[in-house]
Amino acid sequence: MSTPGYFVSFEGGDGGGKTTQARLLGDWLGTLTGREVVVTREPGGTALGAELRQVILHGQDMDPRTEALLYAADRAHHVASLVRPALERGAVVVTDRYLDSSVAYQAGGRELGEAEVERLSLWAVQGLLPDLTILLDVDPATSAARMTGDPDRLERAGDDFHRRTREAYLSRAGTDPARWVVVDAAGTVDQVHAQVRAAVAPRLPQARSGAADGR
Amino acid sequence: MSTPGYFVSFEGGDGGGKTTQARLLGDWLGTLTGREVVVTREPGGTALGAELRQVILHGQDMDPRTEALLYAADRAHHVASLVRPALERGAVVVTDRYLDSSVAYQAGGRELGEAEVERLSLWAVQGLLPDLTILLDVDPATSAARMTGDPDRLERAGDDFHRRTREAYLSRAGTDPARWVVVDAAGTVDQVHAQVRAAVAPRLPQARSGAADGR
Repeated sequence: MSTPGYFVSFEGGDGGGKTTQARLLGDWLGTLTGREVVVTREPGGTALGAELRQVILHGQDMDPRTEALLYAADRAHHVASLVRPALERGAVVVTDRYLDSSVAYQAGGRELGEAEVERLSLWAVQGLLPDLTILLDVDPATSAARMTGDPDRLERAGDDFHRRTREAYLSRAGTDPARWVVVDAAGTVDQVHAQVRAAVAPRLPQARSGAADGR
Repeated sequence: MSTPGYFVSFEGGDGGGKTTQARLLGDWLGTLTGREVVVTREPGGTALGAELRQVILHGQDMDPRTEALLYAADRAHHVASLVRPALERGAVVVTDRYLDSSVAYQAGGRELGEAEVERLSLWAVQGLLPDLTILLDVDPATSAARMTGDPDRLERAGDDFHRRTREAYLSRAGTDPARWVVVDAAGTVDQVHAQVRAAVAPRLPQARSGAADGR
């Protein structure tokens, strides 16, 4: 399962600044490590994924299994065609959302079992998990205040949905502290980036293995 | 799992006449039973499925898991939005391909495990299996001679692929004779239709349960 690359995912509710923080962390890790950096996202991180994203968001009603399978297909293609090849080249890959999104949002919606959705995603990606997952934890009020561009979806889903999704994220982070760090997303972009750097620095392979690693 | 409807799938390699035979059987069952008849197909039996079929056939390279997940998504939506509601209304549903296609073609390709692909499809459709599956068995030479419109795909896949797929179909039919009937697809359209009718007639719910059923 291990690759010579380094794989980081950002997770959390909307309005936490994942897209911006993924880009900033990618820039910083590129400078720090001198490695190739790939910043990407789910869903829609590939050409085929962008088509699937259109199908998912097309507005057509679909049942929860169809939606879960389309997200899993997007993820399978994203990993097979982009993420895994980059990691095998030794790159740093930073993704805005990965499989924990499917599991946590499923918990919010309670339509399918979380365990089933996790198993489906793990099958899709042949077990590839991030080396590090950063949860940008944002309380629902902040999330709602920051949201632009798609208020209907947020409003439709409701506070209860967002509270359950946030709890699912925090619970997942708590059960696997070796992979997860939780960062409070309530500050400014610079404040949050500083917290992300402080959380990431001691966990980098260089920091973990020391100078003997030769990297 | 049981519904008031009656669900028939046609399976087999290309060139066996599944599309024509599905339509003819649908017409005959409509006249015989007086029920609503829905004749459909996979992939692409719904509007969303047609979009996914375009994505799958777009020509873009994709890994086997992505393809399997897209077929499963098409199947999930087909069953949730069209097949199951029709069966619950008491209709006869005849589909040109269903989940056995994914399993048998997987056996031909040997890229993923047949058991994994079957489990994925069964999850997608919440366990819905046909009441009757008709394998139109066609030897590879007949199949190749009858193919029009898409010779490249057939040629590319090769004789070995088709031989293994046919063997997988025959093996599946052999292990579940309560669900499957095998019909030799080598005759004319009328000859094959007559064989299909002869195979289906004694298996219809009316024939099985007798006049006491009230149908």
